[in-house]
Amino acid sequence: MKMKAREIGIKVGSLPTGMNNCITDVKGVQVGHITLMEDLNDECIRTGVTAILPHDGNLFLEKVSAATYVANGFGKTTGLIQIEELGCLESPIMLTNTFSVGPVLHGTLQYMLQENRKIGDTTSSINIVVGECNDSYLNSARLLAVKPEHAIEAIQNATSNQAEEGAVGAGTGTMCFGYKGGIGSSSRMISFEELTFTVGMLVQSNFGKKEEFRYAKSVEEDHTERPDGSIMMVLATDAPLSDRQLKRLAKRCIVGLSRTGSHIHNGSGDVVIAFSNAEKIPHDTKEAIEQRKILRDDHPIMNLLFQAAAEATEEAILNSLTQAEMTTGRKGRIGETVPIGAM
Amino acid sequence: MKMKAREIGIKVGSLPTGMNNCITDVKGVQVGHITLMEDLNDECIRTGVTAILPHDGNLFLEKVSAATYVANGFGKTTGLIQIEELGCLESPIMLTNTFSVGPVLHGTLQYMLQENRKIGDTTSSINIVVGECNDSYLNSARLLAVKPEHAIEAIQNATSNQAEEGAVGAGTGTMCFGYKGGIGSSSRMISFEELTFTVGMLVQSNFGKKEEFRYAKSVEEDHTERPDGSIMMVLATDAPLSDRQLKRLAKRCIVGLSRTGSHIHNGSGDVVIAFSNAEKIPHDTKEAIEQRKILRDDHPIMNLLFQAAAEATEEAILNSLTQAEMTTGRKGRIGETVPIGAM
Amino acid sequence: MKMKAREIGIKVGSLPTGMNNCITDVKGVQVGHITLMEDLNDECIRTGVTAILPHDGNLFLEKVSAATYVANGFGKTTGLIQIEELGCLESPIMLTNTFSVGPVLHGTLQYMLQENRKIGDTTSSINIVVGECNDSYLNSARLLAVKPEHAIEAIQNATSNQAEEGAVGAGTGTMCFGYKGGIGSSSRMISFEELTFTVGMLVQSNFGKKEEFRYAKSVEEDHTERPDGSIMMVLATDAPLSDRQLKRLAKRCIVGLSRTGSHIHNGSGDVVIAFSNAEKIPHDTKEAIEQRKILRDDHPIMNLLFQAAAEATEEAILNSLTQAEMTTGRKGRIGETVPIGAM
Amino acid sequence: MKMKAREIGIKVGSLPTGMNNCITDVKGVQVGHITLMEDLNDECIRTGVTAILPHDGNLFLEKVSAATYVANGFGKTTGLIQIEELGCLESPIMLTNTFSVGPVLHGTLQYMLQENRKIGDTTSSINIVVGECNDSYLNSARLLAVKPEHAIEAIQNATSNQAEEGAVGAGTGTMCFGYKGGIGSSSRMISFEELTFTVGMLVQSNFGKKEEFRYAKSVEEDHTERPDGSIMMVLATDAPLSDRQLKRLAKRCIVGLSRTGSHIHNGSGDVVIAFSNAEKIPHDTKEAIEQRKILRDDHPIMNLLFQAAAEATEEAILNSLTQAEMTTGRKGRIGETVPIGAM
Repeated sequence: MKMKAREIGIKVGSLPTGMNNCITDVKGVQVGHITLMEDLNDECIRTGVTAILPHDGNLFLEKVSAATYVANGFGKTTGLIQIEELGCLESPIMLTNTFSVGPVLHGTLQYMLQENRKIGDTTSSINIVVGECNDSYLNSARLLAVKPEHAIEAIQNATSNQAEEGAVGAGTGTMCFGYKGGIGSSSRMISFEELTFTVGMLVQSNFGKKEEFRYAKSVEEDHTERPDGSIMMVLATDAPLSDRQLKRLAKRCIVGLSRTGSHIHNGSGDVVIAFSNAEKIPHDTKEAIEQRKILRDDHPIMNLLFQAAAEATEEAILNSLTQAEMTTGRKGRIGETVPIGAM
Repeated sequence: MKMKAREIGIKVGSLPTGMNNCITDVKGVQVGHITLMEDLNDECIRTGVTAILPHDGNLFLEKVSAATYVANGFGKTTGLIQIEELGCLESPIMLTNTFSVGPVLHGTLQYMLQENRKIGDTTSSINIVVGECNDSYLNSARLLAVKPEHAIEAIQNATSNQAEEGAVGAGTGTMCFGYKGGIGSSSRMISFEELTFTVGMLVQSNFGKKEEFRYAKSVEEDHTERPDGSIMMVLATDAPLSDRQLKRLAKRCIVGLSRTGSHIHNGSGDVVIAFSNAEKIPHDTKEAIEQRKILRDDHPIMNLLFQAAAEATEEAILNSLTQAEMTTGRKGRIGETVPIGAM
Repeated sequence: MKMKAREIGIKVGSLPTGMNNCITDVKGVQVGHITLMEDLNDECIRTGVTAILPHDGNLFLEKVSAATYVANGFGKTTGLIQIEELGCLESPIMLTNTFSVGPVLHGTLQYMLQENRKIGDTTSSINIVVGECNDSYLNSARLLAVKPEHAIEAIQNATSNQAEEGAVGAGTGTMCFGYKGGIGSSSRMISFEELTFTVGMLVQSNFGKKEEFRYAKSVEEDHTERPDGSIMMVLATDAPLSDRQLKRLAKRCIVGLSRTGSHIHNGSGDVVIAFSNAEKIPHDTKEAIEQRKILRDDHPIMNLLFQAAAEATEEAILNSLTQAEMTTGRKGRIGETVPIGAM
Repeated sequence: MKMKAREIGIKVGSLPTGMNNCITDVKGVQVGHITLMEDLNDECIRTGVTAILPHDGNLFLEKVSAATYVANGFGKTTGLIQIEELGCLESPIMLTNTFSVGPVLHGTLQYMLQENRKIGDTTSSINIVVGECNDSYLNSARLLAVKPEHAIEAIQNATSNQAEEGAVGAGTGTMCFGYKGGIGSSSRMISFEELTFTVGMLVQSNFGKKEEFRYAKSVEEDHTERPDGSIMMVLATDAPLSDRQLKRLAKRCIVGLSRTGSHIHNGSGDVVIAFSNAEKIPHDTKEAIEQRKILRDDHPIMNLLFQAAAEATEEAILNSLTQAEMTTGRKGRIGETVPIGAM
């Protein structure tokens, strides 16, 4: 039975969680998975796709403020430069394995073209974000099992319910701190006087060695030959933040990552994508000038937002471990569940 | 008959060109195209793929120093964050249309997996660079005509001969300054005392309005409803430069771009990818420490390299225009050749 | 008699200038200089300080949106990282020579502490921007002639009148394209339907060789041993732009710089500081959330703003040349006026 | 009696320290302080200057590879853009209080001009790095007690002995986690097969609240009205790293910072400057092309270097606390020593 870290007694930080301790606690955010598991002779397909939707409307017609932060760029995430330039996100955020960025990008494009007949005809293009981790320790990644239609299915599966975590979707085959990792999520509520905001985090965890994990008793050195791993971090909030401020929050996710034990290895693609759905930015409008609500940088609640980003990231990583079920993979490898007593 | 700008009397800058005034003047660099042109009822396919290979060996096993510069990030280029992190390039640089980044990424991945059986099995992943311009003024981009196998064909077509320019490959459907643009290339030779280096540039041009073009007589304002365009710029050199220095060169490409008349519009994806094949960086080696040759930043030839980057970019853009043949496209649109007298 | 480039028949671009073709055309902006010229035996003091004030109120208590762009970082400008982090400017922008950054920083600090008794006592610190060029070709920079009080004087001299240009203030000893350069300014008005905005530019020019100057007949190669020079560019606007958008404008200043002939040499500190005084950001407020007006990135006037930034920069550089009077300097060197016929 | 954290039983990480657990364990690195403490009626001077010299030769004539990382830019550090552009450091790294950046910059300039008669005469300029923290909780910063000559004294005091830590030099008046902070240092030795490298760290700590400190029992919320603080981090190594790789190390310092409890507050200037003195880069040379040794990014020792950067930063912060003596300051404030039992 899968449990969140909190359910087995691990408390991270001091801020309260949202209702479901999940990224979907940020109103409007939706998560969908498609999980691919199949055994083919000596090969094992252990992979999938996860879609995070910033809100429940048309994502192209109603964009959201966004920013990115790359803690270590040994990764293949697409869509970052346009977010940096324009400060907004206009697509679902898709997660998958390293070799499936192309198909997931193309499937998501097809979905968005279907939803928006004007893209590529009378209006401009569409920027799609696809992040990835290398799940080839368990997954026969060279089989290229993920197809464009899997991306579409993941999007169609998206709901605002508590997201499924662990060895599911893009986390089906990933490893974290030498144990079975995967998808994990967490959230924080922050209040200050009359203001209340939610910060949600969803990670795809695929990094670290056993001896680095700071929530386990020290173990012997882990000599397993796994590739340096990665972590994708998606931060959602309903606080009214500009793209510059969202980048500030994105950088605080590294605080949480660091506290789990990561040293952000050379071969790691550690990427944060942060968005606020507090206000929608319309694609079509007659207005030249928009009125935007922006939280003051020096308001005390900004530091609480930073803390929330750190805490939610740390706890989401723990949840990706506690929620992941033991998974066998190619070459007879086993992704063991994190020993609960160890945490 | 297609002519280079120089052949019609336009001289850019003061430095001499390489033998073919082409990016392939940098020894080892190869260029290949695949051009897709087809008429389907009311739709017109006018697109393609262009591959630039940094050298003629195995690109994954022998990487090259590289850097990127994003002058304006309204674009979908992949592979940039890993180049920034590691300072090297390990794949062909692929150019195509905006909606074909996924298939071209996937086709190139398949090619590289085929060439390198260890990727995704016993060694790490592979970072692939795909740049793009939005050719939907002439091309029925929503038809998604480009398939993964086209990317493979473009790579297989690559040769070290003078690259074909104009309405070919990824430039088949692009527009520049209101005229038919496309692929253009140029090169510069620089010498200082005993040193001699070559700088080559290849562009996919897709930006600007008629009245902005500084090589034409002033025309009336161009009210055509074209999307803001982009330009992909690929710089190659045999000078021994570090990734930091290559980024410096990449930024000087904007000097050349500016001199053609571009104001780097809001909707433009103006991206430079720069590499040096002076030294190969082996994927597999037993050495912990490498000996690298690095040109001194304060050597006078560095400023000549900057000038060469600017001049080659400016002239490559002109060549993309003078070499492009008139092209009809969707909705009865016509990409006219730049009036030669105007230049 | 000093003349602007326009007065001698040189027209840059197509947009109309503001009333005085000066950065002070942006309402509220003020400019002040202090010029230091003295001959001491074999040494020549040819230097000074220039202050640009974003508006005529208390700059600390009413901050303005701001951004920076470093085209080449061989420079010593202070204050950039805080502008990048917080997206705002809270001090005058000070320009001086390379060795006087310390005294000018300290003098400006003393001025700001005097104006704001709470800084460093009950409220936080103050971020001061000081830019510089190396004027040691004409100026005996090692004499360290600039003192903190000169910074204060430059600020106190600031007025909203047309700024004095040429060999004045921080431009007293600088050289541009082998001729006497200095302070130059220009502005552009842009209109689109009911919207009207002003873009102003002030430069401290100190770069380039004679043969690079694109407004002069080609001359023989310039073998003078001058250090690679720099250019400081200060952009002001009343358009309601976010810090991200101001960075976009800042990058377009390089378009104008490129068109004068610069290749942005290795030894050059080419730095843009851009601000908008459309809205003030109060230091003290009880509001947690601010309402900000932000121009849409995809509104056609954004491209006009880009063009205005490019044109005003190019013309400000020309004005720094045409307005500069012949100046003798150390070691018998002469900074000649640009030959007017040549332009 | 001042003790290092290790001496009171706190062990950080798993890597061994260098001989003195100090930045001066990196051969050639020197540290010097000048401490200013004076009581004037109601005002208290509690400040100073700290100088870190990358090696014991002429720092301008023999530069070192360097990089910077700004985790949060609410700070006034100078000299960063030139390090970023050229990848090298040519001055001491100076630390002081926020309002003394100008005098320290100017004093260091005078020192360097004295040492190098050609700077500003026949050769170019000099880039000086001055970092700072806001010590105005204890120090009467508005009195501007630091003068240029104090910078020169700090440099002259530099030795390769174990650096003095705690309430000394630039750390005289700073606060960390609500206790008296200051200067702290630590080092790590890493070995892999025949390779052995040292990583050293020196911090000026001035951040955080009591309840954030992860090495103390949880305390009640700290409502003291202190300004958000900062931390300057200086990393030294003898590993042969390029500027790009040094930036990678610099980013890992944030891992260590995070583990102490910092959330990198809004008002914090959290800045890392990293250098390698493995090879000197000569200012004067006839060589156009240099041979540089560069550690491979994918060598296992790179991850150990990352770990060393994280561990040394975390431990240096702890040392800045345990070594700092109780300090009274302005307005009757007291900087208490961290309760040793609490750690």
